[in-house]
Amino acid sequence: MNFASDNTGPVHPQVMQALLRANEGHMPSYGADLIMEDLTARLRDTFEAPEAEVHLVATGTAANSLILATLCPPWGTAFCADIAHIQEDECNAPEFFTGGAKLSLIPSEAGKITPEALRARMAIEGDRGVHGPKPGPLSLTQVTERGTVYSVAELTALAQIAHDAGLPVHMDGARFANALVSLGCTPAEMTWRAGVDALTLGGTKNGLMGVEAVIFFDPAQADGFEFRRKRGAQLFSKHRFLAAQMLAAFTDDLWLDMAGAANAACARLAAGLTESGHATLLFEPDANMIFAEMDAAAHARLQAAGAQYHDWQDNLTGARQTRPAARLVCNWSTSEAEVDQFLAALAG
Amino acid sequence: MNFASDNTGPVHPQVMQALLRANEGHMPSYGADLIMEDLTARLRDTFEAPEAEVHLVATGTAANSLILATLCPPWGTAFCADIAHIQEDECNAPEFFTGGAKLSLIPSEAGKITPEALRARMAIEGDRGVHGPKPGPLSLTQVTERGTVYSVAELTALAQIAHDAGLPVHMDGARFANALVSLGCTPAEMTWRAGVDALTLGGTKNGLMGVEAVIFFDPAQADGFEFRRKRGAQLFSKHRFLAAQMLAAFTDDLWLDMAGAANAACARLAAGLTESGHATLLFEPDANMIFAEMDAAAHARLQAAGAQYHDWQDNLTGARQTRPAARLVCNWSTSEAEVDQFLAALAG
Amino acid sequence: MNFASDNTGPVHPQVMQALLRANEGHMPSYGADLIMEDLTARLRDTFEAPEAEVHLVATGTAANSLILATLCPPWGTAFCADIAHIQEDECNAPEFFTGGAKLSLIPSEAGKITPEALRARMAIEGDRGVHGPKPGPLSLTQVTERGTVYSVAELTALAQIAHDAGLPVHMDGARFANALVSLGCTPAEMTWRAGVDALTLGGTKNGLMGVEAVIFFDPAQADGFEFRRKRGAQLFSKHRFLAAQMLAAFTDDLWLDMAGAANAACARLAAGLTESGHATLLFEPDANMIFAEMDAAAHARLQAAGAQYHDWQDNLTGARQTRPAARLVCNWSTSEAEVDQFLAALAG
Amino acid sequence: MNFASDNTGPVHPQVMQALLRANEGHMPSYGADLIMEDLTARLRDTFEAPEAEVHLVATGTAANSLILATLCPPWGTAFCADIAHIQEDECNAPEFFTGGAKLSLIPSEAGKITPEALRARMAIEGDRGVHGPKPGPLSLTQVTERGTVYSVAELTALAQIAHDAGLPVHMDGARFANALVSLGCTPAEMTWRAGVDALTLGGTKNGLMGVEAVIFFDPAQADGFEFRRKRGAQLFSKHRFLAAQMLAAFTDDLWLDMAGAANAACARLAAGLTESGHATLLFEPDANMIFAEMDAAAHARLQAAGAQYHDWQDNLTGARQTRPAARLVCNWSTSEAEVDQFLAALAG
Repeated sequence: MNFASDNTGPVHPQVMQALLRANEGHMPSYGADLIMEDLTARLRDTFEAPEAEVHLVATGTAANSLILATLCPPWGTAFCADIAHIQEDECNAPEFFTGGAKLSLIPSEAGKITPEALRARMAIEGDRGVHGPKPGPLSLTQVTERGTVYSVAELTALAQIAHDAGLPVHMDGARFANALVSLGCTPAEMTWRAGVDALTLGGTKNGLMGVEAVIFFDPAQADGFEFRRKRGAQLFSKHRFLAAQMLAAFTDDLWLDMAGAANAACARLAAGLTESGHATLLFEPDANMIFAEMDAAAHARLQAAGAQYHDWQDNLTGARQTRPAARLVCNWSTSEAEVDQFLAALAG
Repeated sequence: MNFASDNTGPVHPQVMQALLRANEGHMPSYGADLIMEDLTARLRDTFEAPEAEVHLVATGTAANSLILATLCPPWGTAFCADIAHIQEDECNAPEFFTGGAKLSLIPSEAGKITPEALRARMAIEGDRGVHGPKPGPLSLTQVTERGTVYSVAELTALAQIAHDAGLPVHMDGARFANALVSLGCTPAEMTWRAGVDALTLGGTKNGLMGVEAVIFFDPAQADGFEFRRKRGAQLFSKHRFLAAQMLAAFTDDLWLDMAGAANAACARLAAGLTESGHATLLFEPDANMIFAEMDAAAHARLQAAGAQYHDWQDNLTGARQTRPAARLVCNWSTSEAEVDQFLAALAG
Repeated sequence: MNFASDNTGPVHPQVMQALLRANEGHMPSYGADLIMEDLTARLRDTFEAPEAEVHLVATGTAANSLILATLCPPWGTAFCADIAHIQEDECNAPEFFTGGAKLSLIPSEAGKITPEALRARMAIEGDRGVHGPKPGPLSLTQVTERGTVYSVAELTALAQIAHDAGLPVHMDGARFANALVSLGCTPAEMTWRAGVDALTLGGTKNGLMGVEAVIFFDPAQADGFEFRRKRGAQLFSKHRFLAAQMLAAFTDDLWLDMAGAANAACARLAAGLTESGHATLLFEPDANMIFAEMDAAAHARLQAAGAQYHDWQDNLTGARQTRPAARLVCNWSTSEAEVDQFLAALAG
Repeated sequence: MNFASDNTGPVHPQVMQALLRANEGHMPSYGADLIMEDLTARLRDTFEAPEAEVHLVATGTAANSLILATLCPPWGTAFCADIAHIQEDECNAPEFFTGGAKLSLIPSEAGKITPEALRARMAIEGDRGVHGPKPGPLSLTQVTERGTVYSVAELTALAQIAHDAGLPVHMDGARFANALVSLGCTPAEMTWRAGVDALTLGGTKNGLMGVEAVIFFDPAQADGFEFRRKRGAQLFSKHRFLAAQMLAAFTDDLWLDMAGAANAACARLAAGLTESGHATLLFEPDANMIFAEMDAAAHARLQAAGAQYHDWQDNLTGARQTRPAARLVCNWSTSEAEVDQFLAALAG
């Protein structure tokens, strides 16, 4: 009964097998291997983007920060939700990799930026000339940090506002596959067709060991990325093992199967929580993550039963709230039995 | 009738005379001159801080950024008002000089941070371990960016909150003298006795040509500052001319006279505006800066008469407002005649 | 016949098995897992350093750069060989992670820094006060970039010079195990007993998938490292897979077996090259890397036979030389048969 | 008898008068004043460069570092003499402002880079792809740090090598006027016609109080400069006082008169030293700076007479030497009487 995070779960066995296969004999290092060549073709095909530039790094923080650094000058500012991972969970890595750019925080609702709030913040940053920062990229998180998923229309509207101001759009897709399965659209529809210029395509939370893809749909926007990755200490010598993980995910739709399993477990859990009468869902659980308020007795029963999850007493709503809530995350390996065991413990 | 900024006005003639006197013959460079020695003694005496470490730089942005860099690690965050100069007007210089630290913005009221808002923001930043930034210094602006002045009690309360959390306190005193004259307290009372650890002591807006003093009341907190200043391109070879300006200000209380004249002009202007029936003051004009709403006809009359000031339609209240307001700043040279001419033009 | 680099070879099967074992069930993320706890104890024991602080990162560039950043202020300079990996092969990563420190290059002989050259360079950097950089750490590479190995006495002498000047010592041990096997000493003798303060303990070139350990023998020198690692995008969520690799290496002396195999293959190859009459060794092949001059016909025969290695026409001696040389690197998987096949092809 | 540095001397009285004149009334801040407009036109005219982009900063370190940052990416390297001011005397400011670029040091002869040495260093840096830094600008110092002056032909040859490799050329002209007077050529001939893309035009050492001009001959190469200046804390609010100094220098050829006076004093001193039999000039004193070896008795006589100058025992020749030498610098105010007094003291 571990709902602590999608990164506490195991790697999918097919990925482990792919690593074993990739380990045969010698291969060129630093990404010149054939696995990477295959993967690039596969991702371009998947995203219907034959010109896209694809790179691999090992952590989501690296992917996000290196993309932001590529899209935002040191004297710029990136627009993002006040609870974005790049603001809350990366210990100033975006500021470090950009060389000192700001993040302009936008008050979020249920994890999402609204067009109104984006326009308001852009208006604030946009009128100070050389005295303020130069407006830079918009960064959207899909799945959001509150477990909700932007619709394609919502993404398109936000990206349009940025593009109208000449600003590029980044998507932090640490849980990209979960969102995709949730919306039932194509990767292209959820990215470049909606106006996304650069994507952090998460692998680790999806069920891989530790790899994220960086995709620039227009290679002209990727200028300097390879230098940035190398000096950012993210160019792997035994790069084949990054590529092999990601290629396994994009073989026989494993990435979608993993996300689908996580989302299904989450839906079962959400339904059970609501029915239980012991919990109140705080946001729409669109993908694989739930925020639920429960009373102290419920928490006590769950913990007595060995359930693992994060308390989420703070910062739940952008502002702070004090009722004891739980963040519950499902991953590809979460079983119906685990969900039911959790719900049984909750019922007491 | 120039009320655009305190930095559009002239340098006080006594300062120009001091520069002429400092120009006699050869002197050691880089701050090893006797004028700097005198100034250091003078400032220590003025602030009743015989151990204080004193350095000079040329711009307020340099002073603020170098102090923040000294007090805040690259993975830290500095707490400041949402409208602080370091956030709004320095083009990411604090992020640059700190090597990528954040600014954690605190919603301000009439330019001021409240204890409640500070505590709330500190609570948000303080609980994420290595994932979020490390809490760093509190930066207070005195005179605030809305022309109000913190009382000594207010400063003390805010500094205490920071100190209780083990955090140092910086004061951006670009208009320090104006605040001091406004409160009628001593420099020590408004700084280290209230809990301020490091001060940007503004000279330029006070009436000098271009110099700010950096004062660390506890030299142990100034570690590395001289290296930072040099690599920050702020160590002047002909340093005597920085020192001479500042020493002139601290001779025969010129700094207080200049600030007093600016504040008096501002008070006269504020009174006149209120009496005119054509303007509404938006904040208490505690020092030398006024924000006033006027209708379009009033603006037209003033501009026809050649009055210079900044429109302040945006960001007046932390949020944005749209009624046409004016920011009016007085400096040491603002005459009663200018004020009266402005009021006459307003009356039409 | 692949002698291109130790990073083109496969991961040792025992390491792959350890990864499979580590993949069972859920585990806490970010290094809070039990495998990391075991590893820390194992490394402290191996290095006879019960207080040592141990962290894992994924690339050698990350390990080196994060250690240098911890030991060297942005206004400092690190002393290293002119052909050091941190200078030649990391695309300014040390400058990036330190926030702008310099590398002071020391002319090397056969890959090594001599005490005289170190003293000369330290004298140059040491006398400019705030105008020049502040002298910072000495960084030594063991095995050197020319395949030679510092004796313990050589290391001790160099470290002593640094310590006498109050400077800490870093060892870039990307091929640490190869050096250790070559010298036949203990890990403690080759590190802290010789004066090394912080170690990059290479795993990837040794035969792992992608992990390096960072060891600070005195935890007081590690201040801020965990924040630096996180904001440097090197804190892995599924950290157990880094720890599992490294723990496999330090189980049943696998790390020494792998290094021993590589060194033995290298010795066999070196002996064969010398006996062949077709090649001249340029440096003493102390560990697993050979630089050999061969005439064009020899190169042609080898390439026709499919041998893979790097040309090394440039920068061989610190200065440049033009005779066609080869860099040949053996790894744990290099077989006697491969070596003999190479020598046969060379003989023609 | 002060020959310590050109920055220990006074500001020219005409410059002080210009500052007094500039102090009349209010003026727009941040460079929007009419004096700056005049200066820009004047400099464009002087350099026969009607499109040139001109900016002012306060220190030579700022000018050099901001130009390098504009021309060199953080993952690049700038080529310069091993004794360049940017390497020896700016405390890592170039590394700081560029965001972590390297300086690739070129062994100098009498302060100058030779084409052979430049080509050799460019060959070293140019062949490592993403592993090494990307080759960046060539930075030339005119007058060199050893008091010699590059001929126009020498400058042209070096710039051509850089341009052939697609690299831009920066000139550190802290003593630009001294070099110009020495060569007797036009400003255009010594800069853009010779291949210089961006110039640090020194004012402070020429006889101003503290201002340097940054000139980009092709504005397309200046992208982002104004943002860099602002976030680098070098945008002055009372900018008119920077502009007024520089405009005074470029009025009635004052800049050339000041440089001419300094050079003439230097020539008189150099001739006297040579004739004295007590001193050996180490480099050709082409401009206003002399390096002279003298025996200990000569030093003692001079110091007894109160002569001020810097010992230059170290780093005189790129390598180090131990005979006691002196660096003697003349400025616009150095009188024949001072020179003769120095020579008399030397004669004993």
